[in-house]
Amino acid sequence: MFMFEKPHGMRDTLPVLYETKKKVRSSLTEVMALWGYQFMETPALEFYDTVGVQSAILDQQLFKLLDQEGQTLVLRPDMTAPIARVAASKLHKDDHPLRVGYAANVFRAQEREGGRAAEFEQVGVELIGDGSTSADAEVIALVIFSLKKAGLTSFKISIGHVGISDALFVEVLGNEERAHVLRRYLYEKNYVGYREHVKSLNLSSIDKSRLLELLELRGGIETCSKAASIIDSEKGKRAVSELKTLWETLGDYSCTDDIKLDLGMVSHMSYYTGVLFEIYAENVGFPIGNGGRYDQLLGRFDSPAPATGFGIRTDRLLEALKPAEEQEKIDVVIFSTEQRKEAIRFAEEERRKGKKVVIQDLAGIGDIDQMTKSFQNVTYFIGARKEEKHG
Amino acid sequence: MFMFEKPHGMRDTLPVLYETKKKVRSSLTEVMALWGYQFMETPALEFYDTVGVQSAILDQQLFKLLDQEGQTLVLRPDMTAPIARVAASKLHKDDHPLRVGYAANVFRAQEREGGRAAEFEQVGVELIGDGSTSADAEVIALVIFSLKKAGLTSFKISIGHVGISDALFVEVLGNEERAHVLRRYLYEKNYVGYREHVKSLNLSSIDKSRLLELLELRGGIETCSKAASIIDSEKGKRAVSELKTLWETLGDYSCTDDIKLDLGMVSHMSYYTGVLFEIYAENVGFPIGNGGRYDQLLGRFDSPAPATGFGIRTDRLLEALKPAEEQEKIDVVIFSTEQRKEAIRFAEEERRKGKKVVIQDLAGIGDIDQMTKSFQNVTYFIGARKEEKHG
Repeated sequence: MFMFEKPHGMRDTLPVLYETKKKVRSSLTEVMALWGYQFMETPALEFYDTVGVQSAILDQQLFKLLDQEGQTLVLRPDMTAPIARVAASKLHKDDHPLRVGYAANVFRAQEREGGRAAEFEQVGVELIGDGSTSADAEVIALVIFSLKKAGLTSFKISIGHVGISDALFVEVLGNEERAHVLRRYLYEKNYVGYREHVKSLNLSSIDKSRLLELLELRGGIETCSKAASIIDSEKGKRAVSELKTLWETLGDYSCTDDIKLDLGMVSHMSYYTGVLFEIYAENVGFPIGNGGRYDQLLGRFDSPAPATGFGIRTDRLLEALKPAEEQEKIDVVIFSTEQRKEAIRFAEEERRKGKKVVIQDLAGIGDIDQMTKSFQNVTYFIGARKEEKHG
Repeated sequence: MFMFEKPHGMRDTLPVLYETKKKVRSSLTEVMALWGYQFMETPALEFYDTVGVQSAILDQQLFKLLDQEGQTLVLRPDMTAPIARVAASKLHKDDHPLRVGYAANVFRAQEREGGRAAEFEQVGVELIGDGSTSADAEVIALVIFSLKKAGLTSFKISIGHVGISDALFVEVLGNEERAHVLRRYLYEKNYVGYREHVKSLNLSSIDKSRLLELLELRGGIETCSKAASIIDSEKGKRAVSELKTLWETLGDYSCTDDIKLDLGMVSHMSYYTGVLFEIYAENVGFPIGNGGRYDQLLGRFDSPAPATGFGIRTDRLLEALKPAEEQEKIDVVIFSTEQRKEAIRFAEEERRKGKKVVIQDLAGIGDIDQMTKSFQNVTYFIGARKEEKHG
């Protein structure tokens, strides 16, 4: 192993990207804070039996280790389960609804071949204790306002509702086992497989076309009427009606240009319980974030409450933004011992004006021609009398 | 296990502390950036065989896990070794000296009994490629300027130099084995044990008092003359002379009121190679940070270079600062469907003025009396006509 190797999927963030990322993160969190979300931090390590098991992330993607007492720990694979743990234990239920924000790295073990990041930053929010459609709309509007503040212009929020496919599958297939197969095709976005499987089922041609129609339920508010026409059950109609209210509410936020409905969307096999969404940006192959309603999770931490939220991946957002990476402008003051004090005074004055200034002893420099290249202005305090040069 | 338990030594940072910590972190990093330090991020996981082995942290304090190929990974126990890895592999040696900053969590497994944090944030810098005493002075001055910017008033930087005890031990004891025993007493700050061990040695009374005198070498610049009187070797005298130059240089930074010399200081059994220091704040039992010169580390990453740096522990700095934890001032706008749009408009206007405003659907609230208690101003957009109330 070379001394400079890193574990698979692990990345360094060098100074230029670091500053760009910091700016983007600040834009996102600034909007979230203005919307009244309060930020918190949770530990990188959690118990497997609590947060590990309750996370939406697949077990094989968890980084696991043993503590000194032999208990299994995980590196947090998301922030939703840790925040649910905190909300259940420390935050007062009386203060519900809770609005919590985070900007944190999460960890997901990756196949060696995939080339995907195994540690990446998510910036997101959780809105806990509010089961209204207004809460769903709020977090989607917040995604949109945050991304725009960060400078993203070409993006769409794809919105679905698990209640629609769930209702349709129960109505047409009758049992959960058969529904599971179709749901997996949707989860994998394997629409060819879905269609073939539907055709192979022993169903009336009307029921088959109802199932196939689900894939076509994409677009604007008109999609809701189409959905209502293929769904009969009370539960399914309620889901459609929630989506309609959601669309209207997002209209009040002037956000309908940034959303589209995709009623066959399934983001997880069982985690989400209502409205769910994925964030797509031009030229980025994966969603740059996602979110949705998860009304069951808090109950698993002995504190039942409806909840919704989202997480944006900073790395993918940066990929979408393709921001100009600007080298920072830093000045340097080079001194010899005789004029050390003058050099320090000069640098302090410049810094007081907000300039970034390095103070450098000439004796500490190897190649001065090379060294000074990376700085904007170079000022010399060398020898018995003061010389100054701006280079 | 209760669902809300966390692994040993792991902590949540709730909103009020989060904001305080963020402000303190910003103060520190702002000064470091003005001094020309450029920030970077490295992964939380590193190979044990590279960063794990080369870190200054004891092996039993490392969190270890296996990756899918069976290689041992560690959660980074400090940032110095990872930055050395990056400096050796990615940053141009031509650009030396390099000034790198970081603000990152590090991980150190703790005894169950100790009650110490197993994950905590360090904010610090590394100055790589400059072997001059000016570099040592720069990082110590930077510690002082950063801490003052963060609002810390009562603190001292204890400064030592491993060259002094090393020289004295070689001169008096003759071999490294015997030196090792004394060095361990100093490392553990077990001065009683040190004295007793010295008395038990088969040495002349003059040599014994030279060794005992080391513990008394504490104070201002006059300590250097005292040190010179008990040390004969060239190497030892050079260390004393470096400390004198360091003191003078820190005088040019107007920092001598904030430092004291402690020539018996040993911060690590073998890591530091020259000037080293610890940061003590009033009322905090442990150093809130430490640093020093480590001229051997970069060579272990196949890129030999002198280096110095420091890390400040944000948690201990916060303990020293005891800042007033202020609840954030957030307003809330409560609406019913009829006036949703007006509520959203109103909130947007308020946010544009920089106010933090929650928009809340009345339908999503359980106990409205309880809920509204935590907000500063409450504005209602409820029912068919607009009512407004500031509570």
